[in-house]
Amino acid sequence: MSPLQNDRFLKALMREPVDQTPVWMMRQAGRHLPEYRQVRQTAGSFMDLCTNPELATEVTMQPLERYPLDAAILFSDILTIPDAMGLGLYFETGEGPKFKKTISTEADVAALNVINPHKDLTYVIDAVASISRELNGRVPLIGFSGSPWTLATYMVEGGSSKGFHKTKALIYNQPEVADQLLDVLADSVIVYLNAQIEAGAQAVQIFDSWGGALSHDAYIRFSLNPMKKIINGLKREHNGRKVPVIMFTKGGGQWLNVMADSGADCLGLDWTTDLGMARNQVGNQVSLQGNMDPSVLLSNPTVIRHEVERILASYGAHSGHVFNLGHGITPDVKPESAKVFVESVGELSQKYHANID
Amino acid sequence: MSPLQNDRFLKALMREPVDQTPVWMMRQAGRHLPEYRQVRQTAGSFMDLCTNPELATEVTMQPLERYPLDAAILFSDILTIPDAMGLGLYFETGEGPKFKKTISTEADVAALNVINPHKDLTYVIDAVASISRELNGRVPLIGFSGSPWTLATYMVEGGSSKGFHKTKALIYNQPEVADQLLDVLADSVIVYLNAQIEAGAQAVQIFDSWGGALSHDAYIRFSLNPMKKIINGLKREHNGRKVPVIMFTKGGGQWLNVMADSGADCLGLDWTTDLGMARNQVGNQVSLQGNMDPSVLLSNPTVIRHEVERILASYGAHSGHVFNLGHGITPDVKPESAKVFVESVGELSQKYHANID
Repeated sequence: MSPLQNDRFLKALMREPVDQTPVWMMRQAGRHLPEYRQVRQTAGSFMDLCTNPELATEVTMQPLERYPLDAAILFSDILTIPDAMGLGLYFETGEGPKFKKTISTEADVAALNVINPHKDLTYVIDAVASISRELNGRVPLIGFSGSPWTLATYMVEGGSSKGFHKTKALIYNQPEVADQLLDVLADSVIVYLNAQIEAGAQAVQIFDSWGGALSHDAYIRFSLNPMKKIINGLKREHNGRKVPVIMFTKGGGQWLNVMADSGADCLGLDWTTDLGMARNQVGNQVSLQGNMDPSVLLSNPTVIRHEVERILASYGAHSGHVFNLGHGITPDVKPESAKVFVESVGELSQKYHANID
Repeated sequence: MSPLQNDRFLKALMREPVDQTPVWMMRQAGRHLPEYRQVRQTAGSFMDLCTNPELATEVTMQPLERYPLDAAILFSDILTIPDAMGLGLYFETGEGPKFKKTISTEADVAALNVINPHKDLTYVIDAVASISRELNGRVPLIGFSGSPWTLATYMVEGGSSKGFHKTKALIYNQPEVADQLLDVLADSVIVYLNAQIEAGAQAVQIFDSWGGALSHDAYIRFSLNPMKKIINGLKREHNGRKVPVIMFTKGGGQWLNVMADSGADCLGLDWTTDLGMARNQVGNQVSLQGNMDPSVLLSNPTVIRHEVERILASYGAHSGHVFNLGHGITPDVKPESAKVFVESVGELSQKYHANID
């Protein structure tokens, strides 16, 4: 393996001093880039692109050519695990992901097996290895997975959902069956992320997209606890380097205290959380990642720079901040605007790192 | 006016002692009731029902016949104000509300006038008066309005929205134009709610359905501040009785401290907020309304009672709690389940009021 040329991102995740705040963007490889749309058109379906390690590598690298990013993230989808469990993932244009089979009974849950990533998801592991080779130490590579709760919602609802009524009926009416479903998912995420780490992922993020739809108590039992199990089961060191874990519960800003005790090295925040207040709450216990409203990228460069400055000032002169958006970049953002965002983080953050605590 | 026979709801809003925790349900008059669906079918469109004071009275009364509720709420829609401003509200089946005209330029905003509820929205004021007569002091009547920010999103987007991209582009690129739009809406809400109070509404609720989509700073400027202006402009006493104001920002659980300083008597909470922690945070400054996940009503009676008990215990033996769902009751809930919910609040809460602080 080539030595890492830019370790700002990994250092910030471990709350070590850096020269400027590292930055990446959730969904940075994706539809806002014309060069992505071109590859996507050639590839066929979205899953054709995900399952082709060569093309997945190509699109993962694209944003790095445009913006001075401090990390790359595996191009893939969170729903690879339920697909590998035999649920039959497909995408209908304009409708989001769907599954041919859904989970509704105790017997459905009992029939699920922990995945074997080297057998069921070789295309992902091959993509991680291929991207890692292509990066050749330029920036670290982030591996990722959906959280058990988030994956469970898609498996029970059969796709996207507004109110998660079926999944909530399951957790309230048959909590033990829900626990069992979340357990097989947690075990699957463990082996999946460990395989990504062994193949070259230098940090991993757990995307808990829908944890924020739960009550505080239900969040702890059905989303946080399975994520804690994952964090406990992960390889936290590989090739002599720590492998930091980022936990991102969208809509989880009210639960930072319990999240900070999860064992995660870093908490991802969406834009509704005041970063300065969050930092006051968690102190040096964990690093924080985020959290500009992606909608700000629909504004002019002056506004974008102003928001970046506001968020940097809110976090203040401490180590342990990774700049990001509060959610994925949307397809309607112009690459010029994303460039202003990424560049201004580097430029405006340096003064906060001159005399760090 | 007949004397009020049940003042638990108004007392709890003012943090006065009561014998049991008062309860009502957001959207209690609506599609989960077969008798509502029947009236709705006869009436024609949803707006035909809203604009007919006699039918609006009938459906407002329906849930009171089924459940031992401590308040009635005007049957209407939050989008009456933009409609009265000339935007042309209509509903397409399965698609939610839409507007024929939208607001996109500074000139569009400048052309808007503060509504005159006695001229532009007589059907609402007539409905309040009619419901008030029909209630005849049985329980208090709640009037309501959408918040300026929430109304603005519909006016700018032209209907419902996922990411509010146009409205956010407006607040970030033309904040002064956004302020002006929110100001004319705040002034309209003031006269609208005051007219409802004069016609018989004994408490009012401001529904800030989409404030939770904003960053902390943007929330304060574009949603909270216009609501504060409203609260300052409302008649807070009528016919010798205080008229309490409830402010409900869905997704606002992170901002309770600034919300508690708004001048509102009560804050509505969605189910993601831990009620006990919220009470610790706001103390005796405001009362709290909420906050069971409406999805719990899809469960069996044992689970519903258990959740009611958990939430009552979480709030503890203090005055100032109005029980409610954390959001509107959904059409798929069986009336029997809603009945279990309402009855169990009355039954299980009495012990918390025996030795109140």
